Amino acid sequence: MTAWNDLLQLLQELADIQAAISLLDWDQQTKMPPKGAGARAYQLATLQGIAHERLTNSALRTALETAEREGNGPLPFTGGLATGLLRETRRAVERAVKLPTVFVKELAGASSRAFESWHRARAASQFSLFQGDLARLVDLKRREAAYIGYVATPYDALLDEYEPGQTTAATAAVLVRIRQPAVDLLTAIRQSGREPNRGILTQHFPTDQQWKFGLDVLQAMGFDFESGRQDTSPHPFTTSFSPADVRITTRVYENELPVALFGTIHEGGHALYEQGLAPELTRTPLASSPSLGMHESQSRLWENVVGRSAPFWHHWYPRLTAAFPAQLGNVSEEDFLLAINHVRPSFIRVEADEVTYNLHIILRFELEVALIEGALEANDLPDAWNQKMAELLGIVPERDADGVLQDVHWSYGSFGYFPTYTLGTLYSAQIAAALRRIFPDCEERIARGDLLFIREWLRERIHRHGATYQAEELLRRVTGEPLNPQYFLDYVQQKYALLYGL
Amino acid sequence: MTAWNDLLQLLQELADIQAAISLLDWDQQTKMPPKGAGARAYQLATLQGIAHERLTNSALRTALETAEREGNGPLPFTGGLATGLLRETRRAVERAVKLPTVFVKELAGASSRAFESWHRARAASQFSLFQGDLARLVDLKRREAAYIGYVATPYDALLDEYEPGQTTAATAAVLVRIRQPAVDLLTAIRQSGREPNRGILTQHFPTDQQWKFGLDVLQAMGFDFESGRQDTSPHPFTTSFSPADVRITTRVYENELPVALFGTIHEGGHALYEQGLAPELTRTPLASSPSLGMHESQSRLWENVVGRSAPFWHHWYPRLTAAFPAQLGNVSEEDFLLAINHVRPSFIRVEADEVTYNLHIILRFELEVALIEGALEANDLPDAWNQKMAELLGIVPERDADGVLQDVHWSYGSFGYFPTYTLGTLYSAQIAAALRRIFPDCEERIARGDLLFIREWLRERIHRHGATYQAEELLRRVTGEPLNPQYFLDYVQQKYALLYGL
Repeated sequence: MTAWNDLLQLLQELADIQAAISLLDWDQQTKMPPKGAGARAYQLATLQGIAHERLTNSALRTALETAEREGNGPLPFTGGLATGLLRETRRAVERAVKLPTVFVKELAGASSRAFESWHRARAASQFSLFQGDLARLVDLKRREAAYIGYVATPYDALLDEYEPGQTTAATAAVLVRIRQPAVDLLTAIRQSGREPNRGILTQHFPTDQQWKFGLDVLQAMGFDFESGRQDTSPHPFTTSFSPADVRITTRVYENELPVALFGTIHEGGHALYEQGLAPELTRTPLASSPSLGMHESQSRLWENVVGRSAPFWHHWYPRLTAAFPAQLGNVSEEDFLLAINHVRPSFIRVEADEVTYNLHIILRFELEVALIEGALEANDLPDAWNQKMAELLGIVPERDADGVLQDVHWSYGSFGYFPTYTLGTLYSAQIAAALRRIFPDCEERIARGDLLFIREWLRERIHRHGATYQAEELLRRVTGEPLNPQYFLDYVQQKYALLYGL
Repeated sequence: MTAWNDLLQLLQELADIQAAISLLDWDQQTKMPPKGAGARAYQLATLQGIAHERLTNSALRTALETAEREGNGPLPFTGGLATGLLRETRRAVERAVKLPTVFVKELAGASSRAFESWHRARAASQFSLFQGDLARLVDLKRREAAYIGYVATPYDALLDEYEPGQTTAATAAVLVRIRQPAVDLLTAIRQSGREPNRGILTQHFPTDQQWKFGLDVLQAMGFDFESGRQDTSPHPFTTSFSPADVRITTRVYENELPVALFGTIHEGGHALYEQGLAPELTRTPLASSPSLGMHESQSRLWENVVGRSAPFWHHWYPRLTAAFPAQLGNVSEEDFLLAINHVRPSFIRVEADEVTYNLHIILRFELEVALIEGALEANDLPDAWNQKMAELLGIVPERDADGVLQDVHWSYGSFGYFPTYTLGTLYSAQIAAALRRIFPDCEERIARGDLLFIREWLRERIHRHGATYQAEELLRRVTGEPLNPQYFLDYVQQKYALLYGL
């Protein structure tokens, strides 16, 4: 039991250091004055170096090996929790020992600088301001893949960090499975002759009112404001320092109602996952989702399956029109619903609809595989981006800010991350189908304004378990079967047939 | 030179860790949701443990000893900078090696919990909610003094942390020197028959306007908003993560104009110190003031000597009346000036005037010496507080929130801190006298709205040096003589004779 106690203490301190890193990052994106970036890069690099050192030193490895031999630990870490904790710890240690401390620090410093230059580049819509830092990051990520090791392609090594067990080939196969149906559905919708009036959503909506409405929806979803808060940042994100301190961000545009509204619901879905983790998992490697795709399933479920549905707006639309009587007083619920589900090719991924969204992911997936495999260099990226846009969506952005510079992720060095968005979408449809089987009156309840039963079911079935089960096993436990993209195809085909009268 | 490079790298990483600790603390006081406190206590304890371990391990001690033998380091760390850096590092190491890591963690956890219970206790004005945590902290501070060692009294060991070189006896002697003149001046003012109309300042002042006016003053003082920001917190403070990221807080009361106004100017004075540190000192132990008293000299100089002076308001009063025409349109500049310099016994230290302020410090100094020496226990503190109030100021608060619970400092375990406020006041008067000798037209410039020349002179003479010189030496370099309380006595006697027609 001594080894287990040692192990837990080491893991708890590691979790504390990681929470401090998360706070440095949250602050950089929300509150930090611009000139603070230089010192912040050092602070992040130093703490990441310490975390890496602690994950790889002999004290942790010795405690882990002994605990593995012992099997069960002190309560509650017996049975499945012991197995899960040892598995997640072993996985983190294995990945980390392969990366030299000095490399981890270099990567952290390069990411921090790239974030700043991306910020400036996007503001100026000038890719050249970002290119050098991005090229350095790509090079570092190739080196990372070489350190980690892989069989088929270096991209496998990066993808596995975000979606344990997934391979590049399997991901490509899933993307192919939904590609043609998405194109077919898009074609059918464009031929339907039904054209939503999106102008409804681009009127002037005072930001204070938008902010307040978003908070009301968060409250109804069951977000605990004593255990979290919402701020603004250029790219919305969720971070957590414990289940009792979960922070989300959104961005509010005066002339684009959906940005803040669905951004808040999306991040709120992530936040409910973090707030719903069982308290006894706090400060251990189990206090997280088993994969990014599983985390994303929750944000997608809330944003799209719930937040863009007819039953949801049956309850909320009268409240929205009360908040914006001049803008929406004369707009019917039906027209509003069609406008927020407007399907069309567009430039910005985060504002894309459910049908075209996955085409944005396919584009990024193919580009980053090529970058990491060395088939594409950073300076060729803007052209390659625009070619793929033409190929997949039939449109080309005029400014890099609306194209290759739109996403923050690469500036963090997050390659292998984007496909988890589509995996999350597929999980969300499969989980929502299970929810409807359990609650046949699901839609009626949502239409009455009840959302808490969803949070409770998700919390009980998914959130509280943290990373006790891996994504595939968790999905099977919740839905009774492995990943099946057909649920997503059924969901979009039914939903949009109804909306567009197909 | 290898030892020096090792030393610098170790010190830089230590500075990064300390910056992360400062951010955890800033966030706790400004942004953290209430339930986040439990995990935050662990995060702070873990990082403080790491900082302590790094300050005391053999790597740093070996590098320090070798660098001490070598004398000069790489540029700019030669001559006075080398001497200063080695002295400050040696000092920090010596203090730290005496404190076991496990003790430091225990203290950090206890402080974090005490901060939370103080917060609740103050809100409920119920000392009993704080008493247990405070007693635990006092006990820990007594143990800290025993670890550090002392000759005359354990309080010496604590005082030395904040004001290197100061002793309890010397501090008591300084406080005695100004005690009777303060009482005499207070008596003369009360007998003057001139009664300021403080009602001027307790009208309804919308908080947004107050906030905006404060930012305008900060701007004029030369605060760089690209390198800092202002937020709100229950107790105003300044913190810094680098000279390019300096954060201040204030609190804004709708019906008390001076609270935010002078709080902002006060913290702004601290912030200019931090923003004015020479960039080459960043991430070293020289990137700070040599003592808290010296830091406080800057906030006092700006808040009182400048911010409550007639020339300052000659420029700013028309701007204030423009911001609050309904409230101040009919109030003369003279009446306003008298109101903001209203001298009278009062309960709250941070709102006390320049004449009675030091009596509040004498009260705290005597109580905390008694607590640390064991002559007083935490549960006797409210009674002892109220007795001293009667003795020194002739008034007794009705609620503990207005008495023993008003200050945050003890909840941090900061015993030995309060006297630095009065030392800072004395330094500030002596420094202001030097400023007036250099700039004989000082008052005319301030009356024209020029404040930047003050920031420039302070930056050049004081701020940029950081902790290169100790407080006593720095004061001598700036003013030509050692600490001389007569400057303060002359300053208040002249100022208040004029204001109250004595």
